[in-house]
Order: sequence, then structure tokens, then C-alpha cells
Amino acid sequence: MRLATLVVDGVLHLAVIAGDDAFIPALATKILPECAELRRSVLGTIRGGDAALEALRRACTAASGLRDKLKETGAIVSASSATYAAPVPEPGMVLAAGANYHEHLKEMNTPPPATPMGFYKSVASIIGHKGEIIAPASNPDMLDWEGEFSIVIGKTCHDVSEEDALDYVFGYTVVNDVSARDWVAPAFAAQGMIGTVVAWEHNILGKLFPTFCPMGPVIATSDEIRDPASLKLETRLNGAVVQSANTADLVFGARQLISYYSRFLTFRPGDVITTGSPSGVGYGRNPKLFMKPGDVIEVEVEGIGVLRNTVKQL
Amino acid sequence: MRLATLVVDGVLHLAVIAGDDAFIPALATKILPECAELRRSVLGTIRGGDAALEALRRACTAASGLRDKLKETGAIVSASSATYAAPVPEPGMVLAAGANYHEHLKEMNTPPPATPMGFYKSVASIIGHKGEIIAPASNPDMLDWEGEFSIVIGKTCHDVSEEDALDYVFGYTVVNDVSARDWVAPAFAAQGMIGTVVAWEHNILGKLFPTFCPMGPVIATSDEIRDPASLKLETRLNGAVVQSANTADLVFGARQLISYYSRFLTFRPGDVITTGSPSGVGYGRNPKLFMKPGDVIEVEVEGIGVLRNTVKQL
Repeated sequence: MRLATLVVDGVLHLAVIAGDDAFIPALATKILPECAELRRSVLGTIRGGDAALEALRRACTAASGLRDKLKETGAIVSASSATYAAPVPEPGMVLAAGANYHEHLKEMNTPPPATPMGFYKSVASIIGHKGEIIAPASNPDMLDWEGEFSIVIGKTCHDVSEEDALDYVFGYTVVNDVSARDWVAPAFAAQGMIGTVVAWEHNILGKLFPTFCPMGPVIATSDEIRDPASLKLETRLNGAVVQSANTADLVFGARQLISYYSRFLTFRPGDVITTGSPSGVGYGRNPKLFMKPGDVIEVEVEGIGVLRNTVKQL
Repeated sequence: MRLATLVVDGVLHLAVIAGDDAFIPALATKILPECAELRRSVLGTIRGGDAALEALRRACTAASGLRDKLKETGAIVSASSATYAAPVPEPGMVLAAGANYHEHLKEMNTPPPATPMGFYKSVASIIGHKGEIIAPASNPDMLDWEGEFSIVIGKTCHDVSEEDALDYVFGYTVVNDVSARDWVAPAFAAQGMIGTVVAWEHNILGKLFPTFCPMGPVIATSDEIRDPASLKLETRLNGAVVQSANTADLVFGARQLISYYSRFLTFRPGDVITTGSPSGVGYGRNPKLFMKPGDVIEVEVEGIGVLRNTVKQL
């Protein structure tokens, strides 16, 4: 299934997307009374485990026989014209892996790290599909994209093996790890341990501005993704392809990232792990290319969908 | 007021602590019906703003005249024998400043950074006053303390001036930034930009194990703290003082930390900013000193209280 969080009359609703149909169980209770028993949010469904997902699946089957009636009453709406929040608007964490595509590392003249490297995105920066990326007034000129295939955790886990890691995955989504690149050059020029750490932190802070974490449009449940290590990813700026890669090129895939970070962290339902961005980011180009107000940036991952956002200056 | 989250019969309750009395409004509704209108959690109270806090204050005044009756019915319990969660068990973020006491930097032979430096603690690692710090089976031998005076955000803010910063503070709490120090020496020995960043990240991952973020016992609302830049802080290991400092020694105080990080981040109600630890951590001693199973570690900050935790090996 492909789960989204839609905004209808100002209220967030769990929706199931199939083709251009977005089925909203909470708005279908008069026609399908069993929908009243379902979890009311994507995160609630994740926390509800297999039983919650199966109940939702049964409701979708029932709904498919009543499509016309559900469309009439607004419980099925057009997915393409809907308003989206992120599938999980408030996860406990967004852990972002970096330096994780072989081709991207070559373009940056950097050898692959021996272990995963990453950082936290700000949960307060999350926006949904079709949301606006706001160019910060303080740093509007080096706004970059990073299309990323991303993991959504389904079950609490700590210290799990690579072999077992995918058992804890609920599904997969798409993240655009937006950055203001003003602090990249100082980070690469920094000297000494503390100097380098402080400069790197500034670089990461440039990824935490409000709206800098577009996510969605949906979570594709793990049964929909046959092999997370073989998915096409494409990023398009105003329709022109700027990143084109396959998750087969990842240095550390989903199994490795979950297992490695879980040695330290506890992951919980709804937590998101982004797997890093392939080559083709604006900062790595010659000449450099950045997003401007009015631009449309799209990230598409095979089997999940297209995350589209526009850039705006306040 | 001093607000805590207590666990009574497995349920989390907002409580107001005064001396050894812990008043639990949700358990007082039969005697004080107005308590039914109050927010039911500390985070709810923070989000409710001045009106929610004033309503709680009025309920406390009413309760003080009915102390015996409220004790009889379990709506006032002994604060010292209560079971605590962290005051806000699930904040959106715990941003931890580091390298932020002049004396601590001298002990580490490190000059003060030009801007604040910090990292995120894991929200999944938070435990309350009297909770157990679990020595990780993988890394049990270099378990260190860092007593920290900490800020609790009251109102959503982004890009605020130092002058206005304290207007967004709800109150203050105490955090023990527990670390497994196994990765400090490799971080200081690392070479090159990526090598240093990866080694530093490992060092930080050693601060993110489950239970490594004790917090509490209470949040003292900002009106209780006359001057956050003049508070005594003391850490005691099995009763012996190991850290003794004053927040006057902070390189970047509450105003500066909020203002600096808010240039990038959006802070939201309940978010916690720890201000860093003074000298006297176990790793900085000669000989080094670490926590062992059975040890009791206490962090006391003037005007807030004593955060006490025991160390356990599973």
C-alpha cells in the first residue's frame, strides 16, 4: 500500500493512494462503518503493527467495490489535486546518511568512509509533497537539492543485525535534503579537530532551516518494494534531470544503515533514515547551479513516487 | 512553579512540586472540579501558554487549602518517593551545546570556539529522575557524566535576537549528558576533514545509547530563576563532588544559544537545549574515573533540583 497524510478542511487524514484515487477511511465511516475502527494517522497505523495494516488493507478492498459512492461523499478524492503533509509529519527523528553513493564520492574526490556517516535533520523543517521550500532571507543564494531514498522504521529496535534489519522497516519514502551551501567551503578549508568539527556543524546547520526537509508524497509499505538495493532515483529541476542514479550504488544500504546506527541509537516507529544523495547536486556542478524562487524541484524514486516542491522567497 | 511528570499506576501525570508535596491535578478533579479543565501534561501546559500556566497556578492555590483531603485521595503524594518520567518525556529535540564552560575548555587544552558548538541527543534515550542508566553491553567501561543546566523552550521561535531570546523560554531543567567515552581518543587523533568528521560522529554516537539522557527532576518555570547566568551546578558521584561550577562561567549563555541556533533551526514548545558541562568530567581526570554498575550520580542545579540516577548493567 501507499500511505499518505492529506490535509482536508484543515485536518490531517490518513489516506491510501492507488492510481489517482486517494481513499480517506476517516471520511468513509458512514458508508464503511468498519473504518471507524482503523488507526487515524499513518504513524498510528505504523505503531499498530501488522494488525492495523491488515485492517486498513481490508477496508481498501471493501472501498474498491463502493468507489462511486465514496467519491460522491469525498472519501475518495483525486490524489493529484490533494493537499499533502509529510506521510509522518512528526517523526521522532530524521537521521540523514551522507557520503553514501560511490558516484557522488568520486565527484567530490572523497574516498568512501569505513563506516556510515550522518547527521540529524530538524523534525521542525519537514514539509510535504507540493509544499514550498522557503529560501532563507539570510542565506538565499546557494540553495541546493539532494534527492534521497529513505527508510521508515516500523518497529522499535536497538542493536539489530544486518540480516534482521529489514524486519524493522515499515516502508520507504522520498526526502529532499535541502541545503543552503554557504558553509561548505569553510568546512573543507577548516583546520584542526575543533575547527573542523565547528565548521562541519555550520555546514549541517545550513540543512536545518525551516522547510528544508520535504518528505513524501507517500510511504510505500515494504511489501511493495521487492529490493530496496535496486531502485532508480531521479531528481529534476524545472523538468531537467539533475540526478540520475540507482540505490545499487549505495555504499551502505538499508540493512547496513539500520544495523550500524542501531548499535548506538534506539529506532522507533515512524523514525526516518535517509540514505544519502547521489551525484548531481548543484554544488558539485561546474558551473555550480542553485535553486531560485519559482523553481520546481522533483525527486522520484521507483516504486514510491514523485516528491515535488516549489521554491519561494518570503 | 516546579513541574514534573510522575508515573502513577502506569499513567503519566503532570504534577506540581512544592517542598515534598507533589500535587497531581488530574487526580484531584472530585475535590477540585476546575482541575478537569487543566492541560493534562507538562508539554500540554507549555503549549497552552500563559493561560494554561495561570490556570494551573490557580489550581495550586486552591489545593493548598485542601491539602489533607488531597493527600487522603492520592492527589498529593510525597515528591521524594514518587516515580518520575522526564518532565517532557518526548520533546521534539534535545540540542546539546558542548565546549561551553571556560574552565572545562582550559582542562581540555582547547580554546573557546568562536560560535556555539553542539549536537543532538537522542530523544529515545531520555529517562527521568531516579531512572537507571544502563551500561551498554558493547561499551561498558568508559561511562562518563556531564551535568548540564538546560533550557526548555516555551514558544515557537526562529531567528530571534539575544535581547528577545529569554521571552521564548518556558523554564529550566537539568540534564546528565551521559557518554560512553570509547571514541574520544580516536576523535582527537583523526586526520583530514572527512576522517575528523566521521571520528567526531562516532564520539557523539557514544552519547546516544538508550538511557543516556537523564532529565529532571522538574522544570522550574522561568519566573523562578532570577538569573540563568548565575546558578551553582554540582555533580556528585556516590556523594563525592566531581563537578562544581556556576553558569556565570558559560562561554555562550541561554540568550546566545537560543539566538544563534534559531538563525537556522525552528525551536518549538518543549524543545530542550542543554548548555554544556563544566570541568570535572571523568574522562578529563587524572587518573580517569568512570561510572560502574551500582554507582549513584547526582546533578544539582540551584533553583531547579537534584537529578539522581543509578547505573546498572543488564
